[in-house]
Amino acid sequence: MTEMVRAEVITIGDEILFGQITDTNTQWISTELTNLGIRTVRKTSVGDGAPAILEALQEAHNRADLIIITGGLGPTKDDITKKTLCTYFGVGMVRNEVALELVTSFFVKRGREMTDLNRTQADLPANAEYIQNDWGTAPGMWFEHQVGNNGRSVVYVSLPGVPFEMKSLMKNRILPKLQERFETPIIKHKMIRTVGIGESFLAERIEAWEDALPPHIRLAYLPHFGQVRLRLTATGSATDTARLDRELAEQVDKVMPLIGEYVFGFDTDELETVVGRLLVERGLMFGTAESCTGGYIAAQITKTPGSSAYFQGSIVSYANAVKVGQLGVDPATLAEHGAVSEQTVRQMAEGARRALGADITLATSGIAGPDGGTPDKPVGTIWIACATPDRTVTRLLRLGQYRDQNIQLTTAYGLNMVREQLLASSTYTS
Amino acid sequence: MTEMVRAEVITIGDEILFGQITDTNTQWISTELTNLGIRTVRKTSVGDGAPAILEALQEAHNRADLIIITGGLGPTKDDITKKTLCTYFGVGMVRNEVALELVTSFFVKRGREMTDLNRTQADLPANAEYIQNDWGTAPGMWFEHQVGNNGRSVVYVSLPGVPFEMKSLMKNRILPKLQERFETPIIKHKMIRTVGIGESFLAERIEAWEDALPPHIRLAYLPHFGQVRLRLTATGSATDTARLDRELAEQVDKVMPLIGEYVFGFDTDELETVVGRLLVERGLMFGTAESCTGGYIAAQITKTPGSSAYFQGSIVSYANAVKVGQLGVDPATLAEHGAVSEQTVRQMAEGARRALGADITLATSGIAGPDGGTPDKPVGTIWIACATPDRTVTRLLRLGQYRDQNIQLTTAYGLNMVREQLLASSTYTS
Repeated sequence: MTEMVRAEVITIGDEILFGQITDTNTQWISTELTNLGIRTVRKTSVGDGAPAILEALQEAHNRADLIIITGGLGPTKDDITKKTLCTYFGVGMVRNEVALELVTSFFVKRGREMTDLNRTQADLPANAEYIQNDWGTAPGMWFEHQVGNNGRSVVYVSLPGVPFEMKSLMKNRILPKLQERFETPIIKHKMIRTVGIGESFLAERIEAWEDALPPHIRLAYLPHFGQVRLRLTATGSATDTARLDRELAEQVDKVMPLIGEYVFGFDTDELETVVGRLLVERGLMFGTAESCTGGYIAAQITKTPGSSAYFQGSIVSYANAVKVGQLGVDPATLAEHGAVSEQTVRQMAEGARRALGADITLATSGIAGPDGGTPDKPVGTIWIACATPDRTVTRLLRLGQYRDQNIQLTTAYGLNMVREQLLASSTYTS
Repeated sequence: MTEMVRAEVITIGDEILFGQITDTNTQWISTELTNLGIRTVRKTSVGDGAPAILEALQEAHNRADLIIITGGLGPTKDDITKKTLCTYFGVGMVRNEVALELVTSFFVKRGREMTDLNRTQADLPANAEYIQNDWGTAPGMWFEHQVGNNGRSVVYVSLPGVPFEMKSLMKNRILPKLQERFETPIIKHKMIRTVGIGESFLAERIEAWEDALPPHIRLAYLPHFGQVRLRLTATGSATDTARLDRELAEQVDKVMPLIGEYVFGFDTDELETVVGRLLVERGLMFGTAESCTGGYIAAQITKTPGSSAYFQGSIVSYANAVKVGQLGVDPATLAEHGAVSEQTVRQMAEGARRALGADITLATSGIAGPDGGTPDKPVGTIWIACATPDRTVTRLLRLGQYRDQNIQLTTAYGLNMVREQLLASSTYTS
């Protein structure tokens, strides 16, 4: 197997040092590098000052073959990273015409005035390879530089700190370049996505299977709000690709009988996209009636491009007046059983089918918290209902005391309820 | 003004380097240090190996007066941090009786058998001051050590990596000790939150003011989806508290005339909470009619506990049938001008006031992308409307080609439009 490439990730920004913003970049980058078989040996955060950045670069080039730098770019950062890289490499700044054109068109498109400050974003260190940023105005940069007495070659990548721009540049430009540049081992992943079972219960069910995994196939549990993703990672050399794929498929075949009832998808599947696929297959339109989730489920569904093909819409009935007026919930039901009750959530789901002209609907009503709990209906008491052309099913969730978590768990359990109904729905179509 | 104490935070753990877990400790620690007036000059993450940890300690003691180390403790980590600290300080390991008692009682309480491995958790480097951990079995440790030729005194703190244990130890034991040990300066923050103006344009407007800031008051730009936060940080000695607050207030007074129209709040204000506050003050109920935002705005509003006091609900009219049936949009308008038009979004906002029984509503209709664009209505073409009891205002947004970003920017600009209407609404109440 090829030798391990060592990487250091350097994050630049006072706001990170002072704990003012959460650095989501570093974890994302090291995960991507790990997937490429590149080993992150150090993560470093420094402030917006040239001396600290220089010190970090000098320390890093002694231990790393690859140095990825994020942040410290853009007008308000005084482009400290670019200037410091000039000092570090001992080169001057040169205006890049391609970059200038891109920055200009970026402002033209938005019909905005362009300042001289914006123009300087097209200036790069003389030895930089310009990496086109189609997602913002700060350029990406790639450097090759010899360090130490033996003149070891080190690769430097400089990216903007804005997560959206950094991730787009990495995915579309840098990761493919890294695979070319470094002879990295082959890493194959297979993700099994489960919902509705806790990590430890899952672990118990598959313990024997897990213990029997060969050493070159590793398993990771990735829990996330009602879901647990099982990530299988197989490592081998470039010639093993086909074998690794086959071995991963075999392991999935072995484990499915143990956990199949909880598996909703694989790899990049999400609950909302799996539900979307089933709706399209069956030619059914979906809609939601949301009280305690406040539109979060609709927002999850519509995050997916093309969701208009299977999503009619939602009625977020936060006020009881909307439950009655738009969803046709019986005021007597609200008076007798309350908004958080099986009777109300059932009428919400059925009313949404009529109001939205949807074939299948999901309704939620509960106490998300932190306030509003009562002895018989404590915070975390949430009813969900799914209405289809031939039946309405309901379920009571007893969740915790944290509002965000309750909203996200209700969304996961709710969408899974819709998935189960769709799988059982072969009998009806719209 | 007292001299700034420089801190480095070192996180130990392969799982962090490989991106398998999110490191929430470092941000939390540096925020706490910032509040104490201790300046974090470097954040470092290394793996569970002695050489890397030693290297990190040697680099850190040259630039820091305080080194806080988390992780690398406990049986599963082979207590690598404790062993490496012994090497680093050149001392042996000594069993601490108080710690042993605590570990023992911890196991007795849980009725679990105690192994020799568990007993070694009570072993500490000879020069360690034992910091009692009442929240777990791994001990906290405090060291004072002379480094360099001048024998500068550096403080080392070693804590378990489990966030709950680390935070409990910091809050209850370490932070008070740090305040005693270091004569820390006072740091005061003031955050000015703007929306609807780009970072570079903001920078140009306040350039003269920024250049005139006194050296002990620093400014940081923190951009985030249509918003830019301006963070003022003032530093002084313990006796200056009142003066610093006054100086920050004066700087805010100076800058407001330049950017007031874009400022929606201060410090912890969020757009949705500011809108919520204005609604409560005016006794008005809010609602949304969402097409391209798909319920995201409603979800943002209802994230806030108690939002039911001012939020009626939302009609997510993804399908035109819902725009007509629930919002009363005229089919002729849809046929003539299309769903993405000023005429349609205006009727959506006004229809939502009736359907939801809301006083003020926000409507969105646009092409979020990536598909669905046409030459005259490219992706990113988004109409928003705000309807109040006495008028309806509309605005055309020309955004980029990225769906998530378009949804979040539309939410920011939309909520800001509602805020502006509420500020102009002193004339009417529900």
